[in-house]
Amino acid sequence: MFTVNAYAATSATEPLVRTTLERRDAGPRDVLIEIKYAGICHSDIHCVRGDWGPVPYPLAPGHEIAGVVTQVGSEVTKYAVGDRVGVGCMVNSCRTCDSCLKGEEQYCLNGMTMTYGSVDKDGTLTQGGYSTHIVVDEDFVVRVPDSVALDEAAPLLCAGITTYSPLHRWGAGPGKKVAIVGLGGLGHMGVKFAHALGAEVTVLSQSLKKTDDGLRLGADHYYATSDPATFEELAGTFDLIVNTVSAKLDLDAYLSLLAVGGTMVNVGAPREPLSLSVFSLLSRGRSYAGSSIGGIRETQEMLDFCGEHGIGAEIEVIPVDKVNEAYERVLSSDVRYRFVIDIATLA
Amino acid sequence: MFTVNAYAATSATEPLVRTTLERRDAGPRDVLIEIKYAGICHSDIHCVRGDWGPVPYPLAPGHEIAGVVTQVGSEVTKYAVGDRVGVGCMVNSCRTCDSCLKGEEQYCLNGMTMTYGSVDKDGTLTQGGYSTHIVVDEDFVVRVPDSVALDEAAPLLCAGITTYSPLHRWGAGPGKKVAIVGLGGLGHMGVKFAHALGAEVTVLSQSLKKTDDGLRLGADHYYATSDPATFEELAGTFDLIVNTVSAKLDLDAYLSLLAVGGTMVNVGAPREPLSLSVFSLLSRGRSYAGSSIGGIRETQEMLDFCGEHGIGAEIEVIPVDKVNEAYERVLSSDVRYRFVIDIATLA
Repeated sequence: MFTVNAYAATSATEPLVRTTLERRDAGPRDVLIEIKYAGICHSDIHCVRGDWGPVPYPLAPGHEIAGVVTQVGSEVTKYAVGDRVGVGCMVNSCRTCDSCLKGEEQYCLNGMTMTYGSVDKDGTLTQGGYSTHIVVDEDFVVRVPDSVALDEAAPLLCAGITTYSPLHRWGAGPGKKVAIVGLGGLGHMGVKFAHALGAEVTVLSQSLKKTDDGLRLGADHYYATSDPATFEELAGTFDLIVNTVSAKLDLDAYLSLLAVGGTMVNVGAPREPLSLSVFSLLSRGRSYAGSSIGGIRETQEMLDFCGEHGIGAEIEVIPVDKVNEAYERVLSSDVRYRFVIDIATLA
Repeated sequence: MFTVNAYAATSATEPLVRTTLERRDAGPRDVLIEIKYAGICHSDIHCVRGDWGPVPYPLAPGHEIAGVVTQVGSEVTKYAVGDRVGVGCMVNSCRTCDSCLKGEEQYCLNGMTMTYGSVDKDGTLTQGGYSTHIVVDEDFVVRVPDSVALDEAAPLLCAGITTYSPLHRWGAGPGKKVAIVGLGGLGHMGVKFAHALGAEVTVLSQSLKKTDDGLRLGADHYYATSDPATFEELAGTFDLIVNTVSAKLDLDAYLSLLAVGGTMVNVGAPREPLSLSVFSLLSRGRSYAGSSIGGIRETQEMLDFCGEHGIGAEIEVIPVDKVNEAYERVLSSDVRYRFVIDIATLA
């Protein structure tokens, strides 16, 4: 065991504070990573505040991790000291179930080990990326291409893969019309990916406030969902809609925007159930689906795609002492488009 | 114009009666069909009783039509006198929209012409298969393979294609676990097709009453959905669920039966909206879809598949004067599995 500096929640109601945590020593198959940057995901806030159930405190959140390998276990074959690497939402899974064997560890039937707040294989609590170092099995580490800066890479590990995976699975590409609902941390990555994949991209945002940004990021069209005319004008248009907004919405209205055979995919889930008229699906052979992050292999694919296409997240780098302030700004959607903590400020 | 015998509804509340109707003369691209058998679809009953909106009476329903060609127009190339043919739910479509160009005329963006109760291209009302003859553009006629009896073929034109299409689209086949919800007119065809396609087939029926039939038709397993243990035992099992039941159901419970990446497809729509927890989809990358009959090309494919695999519907042939009685039996699910009218009794 060794001690690392961290920034952690000590209760559901108090601000996060500087503290120290214990990490396990790197085992034969582990990689020790010096964390350089950690993205702030909306779910970090939900989790540490207990919105999703009881949390064992103190807890350092953070599952958008980018850093450099500083030590490898004796059996590690994939990484070497000095490698630029990332860690996302998972640090382990059962590796034997159908999902794991297919490389879809995020759907591990025995429950994957989340990067923070899960019980690790040694019985300790996993602690996330708001800390100076992390020890992770090499199979759950991915490589960051040289052409992607580490600070811009961090958010790719959750916001990136969460939007890339459904775009990839449902065939976003040339000749396809894709809508991204919501232009936030996830949505802005969705626009970049859909554009780079060759699709015709439309942003559906509550207002037209971020239109210039949306077009700069690669959108071809930008519509306000607060305007009822949008739903009339775009009826039956999209082959794929990726909905990054977790708020409750009028599902039938959004489904009406799908072309024949089209699919709408939610990457976030509203807490309350939605109402759905099956006729919205039946009348045009449409589908409504859910997608959760992505597997390790696909995460590496996504990073390689980013390397080839010069894609990184749009970020605002902050020192660790600004995390609590950043949380409030995330909650009021006042970020373009992801806060990333400079972990050097924790040293 | 010429006059044909028919069995038609004259109001929403009175029984169907023997009557006569006018048909247009066969044009250059039309086929005149002597109808031998017409299946009774649940939707015939809904339609003539005005459950789905106002209906122009008198109306002869019937969109599961099997017969023999007795005359062809001068430009007809696909059919000749004496051919055994079928007509399903559509008799025309715009032929120019994206859906029509893809062969998905059932999703015609300009609205396909239904076999009965629609306005035809000559401005008259289309009249269905409960009659001695029908005149149909050759592009909306399909061929019945010699190995399928005409009476057993009739229900394939709606119940058959409605279940075949989603099984085909979502890849039912060897190594796949498929559930069919409901063992009625549609469900029994779903079981036959899923079995013939090589899938492992489970029937999910309200009770175990029809277990012997289900297994005989090709199911490998049979469960009662009235038993809560079914949902525990089968959690996460199916790659594909085809739901043939139009009644309102606990969608989240059924979605929980899907394996990772699995799809549930409704081929009927309950009138009231359903409640859906998006987490049911998100947690395992699942989809919920709708599917409506099938295109003409796929209907022919389905019939050819039936010819190769010796598949027909399980039917009870009735004389036309038993139609009103049959309607009551359909409404009380007292039919195994489709009534087919012997149109010779209308002569």
